[in-house]
Formats: sequence, structure tokens, C-alpha cells
Amino acid sequence: MKIAIIGAGNVATHLALALSVREEIVQVMARTEESAQRLVRQIPGDAEPVTDYSRLTPDADLYLISVNDDAVASVVDSTPDFPGMWAHTSGSVGAEVFQGKKSRYGVFYPLQTFSRDLPVKMEEVPMFIEGSSHEAEATLCALARTIAGPVEIAGSERRKALHVAAVFACNFANLMWLEADSLLADSGLSVSFFRPLLEATLGKLSTMSPRDAMTGPGRRGDLEVISDHLSRLPEQQRRMYAMLSRRILEIYHPDKASEIHI
Amino acid sequence: MKIAIIGAGNVATHLALALSVREEIVQVMARTEESAQRLVRQIPGDAEPVTDYSRLTPDADLYLISVNDDAVASVVDSTPDFPGMWAHTSGSVGAEVFQGKKSRYGVFYPLQTFSRDLPVKMEEVPMFIEGSSHEAEATLCALARTIAGPVEIAGSERRKALHVAAVFACNFANLMWLEADSLLADSGLSVSFFRPLLEATLGKLSTMSPRDAMTGPGRRGDLEVISDHLSRLPEQQRRMYAMLSRRILEIYHPDKASEIHI
Repeated sequence: MKIAIIGAGNVATHLALALSVREEIVQVMARTEESAQRLVRQIPGDAEPVTDYSRLTPDADLYLISVNDDAVASVVDSTPDFPGMWAHTSGSVGAEVFQGKKSRYGVFYPLQTFSRDLPVKMEEVPMFIEGSSHEAEATLCALARTIAGPVEIAGSERRKALHVAAVFACNFANLMWLEADSLLADSGLSVSFFRPLLEATLGKLSTMSPRDAMTGPGRRGDLEVISDHLSRLPEQQRRMYAMLSRRILEIYHPDKASEIHI
Repeated sequence: MKIAIIGAGNVATHLALALSVREEIVQVMARTEESAQRLVRQIPGDAEPVTDYSRLTPDADLYLISVNDDAVASVVDSTPDFPGMWAHTSGSVGAEVFQGKKSRYGVFYPLQTFSRDLPVKMEEVPMFIEGSSHEAEATLCALARTIAGPVEIAGSERRKALHVAAVFACNFANLMWLEADSLLADSGLSVSFFRPLLEATLGKLSTMSPRDAMTGPGRRGDLEVISDHLSRLPEQQRRMYAMLSRRILEIYHPDKASEIHI
């Protein structure tokens, strides 16, 4: 498959590297010659660096748009409807962005956070695919299976559910680490002391559900420890602690939940 | 050093295994002969399994009490004040539990969650130490350094701060995974799809603070996505999402925080 990559950021880089093992990357388009060149140099073959939509080849089998979420629509609007397939890699943008503008299109969304310099095990990354037709979907799924972990079909609704859940699983979990970090600062410690513990906690999820993996005072229904903790916390964290502990009690000790006042 | 281990659960097992490399485990005391025997069989040397306080040797250099938090006091009350040192391994119990009952004592607290069958890299586990005297503290610190990662002195106050922070970092983070899991259930997915993403998110903490590692709609100040997500969530999760997003906005976009209503 001849692939033109539009974008040269973190996601584009990791996908281009993974795809270039079996497929031919024919062009890399970026806003600057420098960033297009940088990605081209990393991948095997003779990909051409381009910076102008008018230079895009009409002959690619796939145009992969891997740019910031809010730039996808503008790329779609600025490019012709070549015979090849179009796909973008954004979790928060639907396939509808292509509607009426391209004939064959889809979404090719890797559920992972990418940093340019951190290696990613692409073979473990789940991919979520949507296509404008069965043929488009099948083509993108087959391509995804050559580079990634589990491949799932996900229309707009499923992808949105995934995005909301990811906010809880990643962003809010990271907020909890941020709060822990600021609570520890007074003791001259940091959240890095928790890394072995957090790795073990996360590791549990490979053999059990988070419901079974829960520990701590809420899980035990230990109201004494909970109220001692609440009395030590500054207002902001106190309210968060109260709400989240009440939620844990609702799950494991529903009779005790009403004893926590937010 | 001759060590008598009181307890044969997960913490006792991992500590006994690590300590037995350099020290002599002379006794393992457990409630049943069977569990005392099981631990004894795993460690080198001739540790004696015992089930009765009257059989505890008076000659150990250290009596390490590794039982459930709420059983520590009863072990202390049921044992004589031998000339050796006494220490317990509980994060939530102070050294005061020994006061007036033993002459030399302390806390030997590994900050990790232990499962009997999961290997633990003890050499990375942070240890928090408290002693009844400088001598006791120095002895326990030296011992901790032979088996564990960073070793810190932590009196009751510091250990309590640590415990509150651990509730945020571990239990509340796990709650976020639980919520993600239940939100995904309707789509036929599970939180296990997020494991590569979560590992990468946690991995970031080795090179940056959680404050710098934050991503997502709150971090970007994207009120449109936040209110779309809020409109999709059931009441319980909606309130949590609103409160936590508002907190993230307060940190990164304080001007926008008041636009989220809880």
C-alpha cells in the first residue's frame, strides 16, 4: 500500500515508523520543510517531504491525516478527493468530517499517548476503526492488524464513550497523582515514592477488575480513618476526598455512604 | 541478625524472603501450623514454625510483627518484653502502640501492595522507618537499606501524610479506573483496553511531574468537550466528572473554572 502521511507530530511519527515496516510511505506532508524532512529521514524508502497541498500525490492508496484534532477539518477542506482512501487518527473527531468531501474514508485511531522520544509498543496499542463502507472498514482494519494490538470497530458513539472513559482512566487518575504530589510536598516527599506501588496497582488490572483490586479505608468501610483523613486535608482536597470516599462506600458499603458529608 | 517473624501473610512473606538473604530467620509465628510451615519452607535456614506466644524465643535480635493493622496492638499486648528490638510493618499504626510495653521498638513500613503470588522488586520499594531511639532508628534503617529502595525516617505525622496521599494516588486512581470500566461496559469494552495508555501515563511520572504530564479537555480548557461529556454521563459519574474537571480547570485555566456547575 502506498501511504501519504499528512502531519509530522508524535502520532504521525509513531504510525509512520510502524507502517513503514510493511507499507510504502510515499510522502510526508508537514507545515515546515524541516519537520517533514525530520520524519522522512527516520523511515525507510524514498518518501518525499512536501509542505504544500498542491504537491500531494494523486496516486496514494491511503492519505493518513495525523494532525491536531481541531486541524483535521481544515486539512479535509484543503485537499482534493483523490481516488485513494482518506483516514484521520483523531479520537475526538468523527468520520463525518469527510462526508461529502471524500468518497472513501475512515478513522484510524490508536488509543495511546505518544511522545516523540519515548518508545511505544505499537503491537500492544488498541486501534479503533471506522469506515465509510464495509470495504473501507475492512481495509483499515487489515492495515491496523499489521501494526497494532486489539483492533475494534468504533463508530462515533463508541469512540465518544471511549473518550469519556479515557478522561476518567487517564486524566482524572493523573489528577489524583497530582493531588498526592502536592499533599506530599510539605513532607519533603513526592509522588515518585509511589511509583512502585502504582505500578503494582496498575499491574493488578491484568488479572482482576478494578472493582476487585480496590483497597484502602473506603474499601474496608473504615469510617474512623476516613474522618481522620478528612480532618487533615485543606478544603479543596477535603471535598474531593469526601466525594470519592462516599462513592467508594456506595459501591462496597452502601449502608455507610450517607455518613460522609461533602 | 536473628529475626523472629510474627505473621505469615503477604507482607510477612515478602519481607521474610528478602531479609533471609542476609539475616537469619529463627522463627515464624502464625495462627496455624500450616501457614507458619508454608512460609518456613520458602526461606533458607532452619526457621522454627510456632503458633503459640509462649514458644517465642527470648533470643531474637528483632521481632517483626507483620499482621493486619488492627491486630498489631493485640500482638504487642500478648508478648513479653524480650531484650531484642520490636517493630511492626503497618503504615497506619504508630510506634506508640509499643509504648510502655517494649523497651526498644520501631516501625518498619514498606510502601507497597503485596500479593502472595506476584513478584515484588523489593530493591525499588520505599521503606519508612521510625524508632524509639536513635539507636533503634539506625538499626532499622540499616536493615531496610539491605533489602529495599529509598529509606526515609517517618514519624507518625509524616506517615499519616503519606497514607492520605496514598489514598489519592492509589485508591482514588483505582476508583477512576473502576468508573472507566463501568462506562465502557455498555460498549462491550473494558478498562483493560486502557492498560497500554495507563502504563505510558504512569511512565511519564519518571521524567515529569503529574502537573506537567496532564492532558485532556480540562488541561486544554476545552469547555465544549467537557459539557458534551457531562451531558452523556449518568448522574453519579456526572457529578464526579464536573468536580474533577473544575479542579483541573482551577489549576490550568482558573478563569474558566466557574463555568462548570456541580
